[in-house]
Amino acid sequence: MSTRTPGTDDGSAPLLTLLPSTPGGAAAPAPERADAARNRRRILDAAARIVAEKGPDAVTMNQVAHASGIGVGTVYRRFGDVSQLLWALLDDRERQFQEAYMSGPPPLGPGAPADERLDAFLDALVDRVAEQRALLLAAHSAAPRARYHSGAYQVMHTHVAMLVSRLRPDADPALLAHLLLAPFSPDLMHHLSVEQALPAERVKAGVRELLALRDRPRPA
Amino acid sequence: MSTRTPGTDDGSAPLLTLLPSTPGGAAAPAPERADAARNRRRILDAAARIVAEKGPDAVTMNQVAHASGIGVGTVYRRFGDVSQLLWALLDDRERQFQEAYMSGPPPLGPGAPADERLDAFLDALVDRVAEQRALLLAAHSAAPRARYHSGAYQVMHTHVAMLVSRLRPDADPALLAHLLLAPFSPDLMHHLSVEQALPAERVKAGVRELLALRDRPRPA
Repeated sequence: MSTRTPGTDDGSAPLLTLLPSTPGGAAAPAPERADAARNRRRILDAAARIVAEKGPDAVTMNQVAHASGIGVGTVYRRFGDVSQLLWALLDDRERQFQEAYMSGPPPLGPGAPADERLDAFLDALVDRVAEQRALLLAAHSAAPRARYHSGAYQVMHTHVAMLVSRLRPDADPALLAHLLLAPFSPDLMHHLSVEQALPAERVKAGVRELLALRDRPRPA
Repeated sequence: MSTRTPGTDDGSAPLLTLLPSTPGGAAAPAPERADAARNRRRILDAAARIVAEKGPDAVTMNQVAHASGIGVGTVYRRFGDVSQLLWALLDDRERQFQEAYMSGPPPLGPGAPADERLDAFLDALVDRVAEQRALLLAAHSAAPRARYHSGAYQVMHTHVAMLVSRLRPDADPALLAHLLLAPFSPDLMHHLSVEQALPAERVKAGVRELLALRDRPRPA
């Protein structure tokens, strides 16, 4: 309830000023004891609820401690500061998303034909960006060109290029994957979903129309 | 030849910190006397040469005055400072580009079928971004979300939506135009052309492949 009064010194720190290193990238967390893992889960879930209800600017370490029922000292020890906690939140959802498209059930995961997997992936990506829009936008605005070097982007890119290479063995899958991921930048998704108020379903339909805008050239 | 010594106080000012207002937008310049228009042209051409040879960071008002053969006082009077001069340079090329696609010769301008005009436009846009890449990138990085509100973007968007509505009367032309313009953001074009070293012709071919990636659904 302490609106506008940051509960901690970190409450007023600028959001997401850390460089977007590698969410979902190589540095896997060390194995955790079961209670440590449970605490981490409760802290992240509480932070996610606050972001969803009030936006990322409203998150403070004290509020997260209160909402999760975990001592503020533990919250600091696990996450350092608000900025790192918000990065962990992005990373956490990105890992779940990666698991879903790399090894989850079809059509998003393996087992469906490439065209169905691509449609399922692009649909899921619209939802993924919508779900953490404010966080992704803050991270993106802080360092727009870092997008292409983030672990999250590179894993998505590899996945889309693999699907494209199955759909169109004659095309340039790496290039097409970059072009295909371009509309999903947080700033365009924010423009379409918030500023233009387009529902997610309409954006998904538009992406499908884009990929069938032109007739394919007939083989000579 | 005075390398690394800014010729003026403005030489060390951060580039393009002005908000991207409306390049190519509503505020047309007042009518100029012929000699004033000639001077403006010479100053802009000299600045464009310096940017092309040494990059935007190298531009100083003194260098531009020297290279254009116009007194430095006139350069300041006309453009204010380096930042405004660089904006004027972007604006100048954007107006030429707009004239070419709105009223120039076909297939970029009117007179060709919509599919040929769209191909010509997307090809020209790859070249347009490549030509002023460093400037566009600096402007974009300073305010990434301003892209969708700039006059330059809005005029391109209207044009692409018009062509899409002729190609696919059943589609959502305004949405498709946004999705279609997404790969041309300066940051992705920089990544592809500089970091990935892809030639412009390959990027153009990739854009065409993207738009024919999927087969169109048969009418029921």
